[in-house]
Amino acid sequence: MDIVVVGSIALDSVETPFGKVKEALGGSAVYFSVAASFFVLVGLVGVVGDDFPKEHIVLLESRGVDTSGLARKPGKTFRWVGRYDYDLNKAHTISTELNVFAEFEPEIPDRLRKAPFLFLANIDPELQDKVLSQITSPRLTALDTMNFWIEGKPNELEKVISKVDILLINDAEVRQLADEPNLVKAAKKLLSLGPSRIVVKRGEYGAMMFSQEGIFFAPAYPLERPVDPTGAGDSFAGGFLGCLAKSGELSEDNLRQAVVMGSVIASFAVEDFSLNRLLKLKPAEIKERFREFIKLTRFEGSFPSI
Amino acid sequence: MDIVVVGSIALDSVETPFGKVKEALGGSAVYFSVAASFFVLVGLVGVVGDDFPKEHIVLLESRGVDTSGLARKPGKTFRWVGRYDYDLNKAHTISTELNVFAEFEPEIPDRLRKAPFLFLANIDPELQDKVLSQITSPRLTALDTMNFWIEGKPNELEKVISKVDILLINDAEVRQLADEPNLVKAAKKLLSLGPSRIVVKRGEYGAMMFSQEGIFFAPAYPLERPVDPTGAGDSFAGGFLGCLAKSGELSEDNLRQAVVMGSVIASFAVEDFSLNRLLKLKPAEIKERFREFIKLTRFEGSFPSI
Repeated sequence: MDIVVVGSIALDSVETPFGKVKEALGGSAVYFSVAASFFVLVGLVGVVGDDFPKEHIVLLESRGVDTSGLARKPGKTFRWVGRYDYDLNKAHTISTELNVFAEFEPEIPDRLRKAPFLFLANIDPELQDKVLSQITSPRLTALDTMNFWIEGKPNELEKVISKVDILLINDAEVRQLADEPNLVKAAKKLLSLGPSRIVVKRGEYGAMMFSQEGIFFAPAYPLERPVDPTGAGDSFAGGFLGCLAKSGELSEDNLRQAVVMGSVIASFAVEDFSLNRLLKLKPAEIKERFREFIKLTRFEGSFPSI
Repeated sequence: MDIVVVGSIALDSVETPFGKVKEALGGSAVYFSVAASFFVLVGLVGVVGDDFPKEHIVLLESRGVDTSGLARKPGKTFRWVGRYDYDLNKAHTISTELNVFAEFEPEIPDRLRKAPFLFLANIDPELQDKVLSQITSPRLTALDTMNFWIEGKPNELEKVISKVDILLINDAEVRQLADEPNLVKAAKKLLSLGPSRIVVKRGEYGAMMFSQEGIFFAPAYPLERPVDPTGAGDSFAGGFLGCLAKSGELSEDNLRQAVVMGSVIASFAVEDFSLNRLLKLKPAEIKERFREFIKLTRFEGSFPSI
């Protein structure tokens, strides 16, 4: 097992200007698992209700995802209902039913505890901390969070952030967590908490990675027809950590490539609802889009005379 | 004369969270001229009132700017009063006094009519069209505009856009002008009007260039202390066209370098109020920041195994 992910498994009902789906497979741990499955073997830890369709589990297993950490509890699976308007950067939540996810107590099966990579998707920071202590010898740990925890459990959140290697977080949340409107200053402040890298997700504006080695900037792929941004951030995380776990070496070069790969996988994820696009995605398409990111960003480095 | 610019000359009163200035030198043609003056000789066409301080003209001339097209009319100079909050992407206009600028009838002096490069800063599209017809044999023409003209004179604007080589425009305005929420589709629609390139300015999110040769993406320089974004777009245009005019050759490679140079110069412009930072800027600093843009965007192009 190369990466363990702990997070939500959901049935999402989503409407965008381009269509809608009802109770489709979703959740941070699911998007992450499928995204990372292009690169390495993933172990998924989460909880579903007794209404969770078995075919979804079969599907995850067909991608090589280890579901031994997937608990099935009496009750209903976590559900999210949301809408996006033409500004796909902004999700409008219509309803959130936590259901069995409300009592989620992640338990890492023995066979997953030795995984070298860990992704703590956006859940209660106290649970993230508990999971962290169950992993015996991680090479690299990464954590995502959201405004709900920044506001509700700031101390618990800072505590767990201080223990991980990489914080993945969106643009507005970096500023909120650091209480600093300037992005560069905010990221520096968060680096001082402990992580060696802050990866800032900026939706259609791309992603940035901050570390002692400097700042790296990757654009988002300019899509003509993004359909549903749900899961884009977790698909980014899956592409990023999957690529990194595959390469094995945690150099700045590999981390930069992994950021680009995160952007590549996220760009596919938003091309259709739910996991639909990722499940059809072929390695040759990933390779082709990675090449397009090179074309998108390259310029002649020799300095023009002035 | 390498580039002629036609646009506003203003006295700006600006307040941001980092300080304020009163009736400081500003205006699109001024920012553009100073930015481009690092690369080539600029001829400025505009109008000021009889209250316009002579020292500002002396200053422009000291940068090699030809002010023979600068008309002085009875009355007051154009004034803009604005405020920015911590979100420096958004200007709040407190007042606009057009004064002598309301009757602006740009007249290009003979000595400037043979200029190979022309920048039509954001003014009435009918005036932009008149200026265009006064330039005898331009190698490259570029135009900026704003929501005011998109709403007020859409037909006149489309007409002049169809005659220029490059449209420089901000993110929201591309979508508004094309009546299309998707940026890629919107840019394609505007390319079909005639220009060979659309350069989209996205403030702190960077700039993108669209053409038949593909899409190019340049980040904005991540600043820890942007002070005043006034004039950033025109400084970008000045760096972009100045660099391009200097290189002489209008290849995709040179255009991409010029977009980066536009971002470089704009990043300095916002470090202080008015023209203060640009007037102190040294070529070695430009070179150093250009190198930082390389570091900011480079990643290993060999595809990681999957």
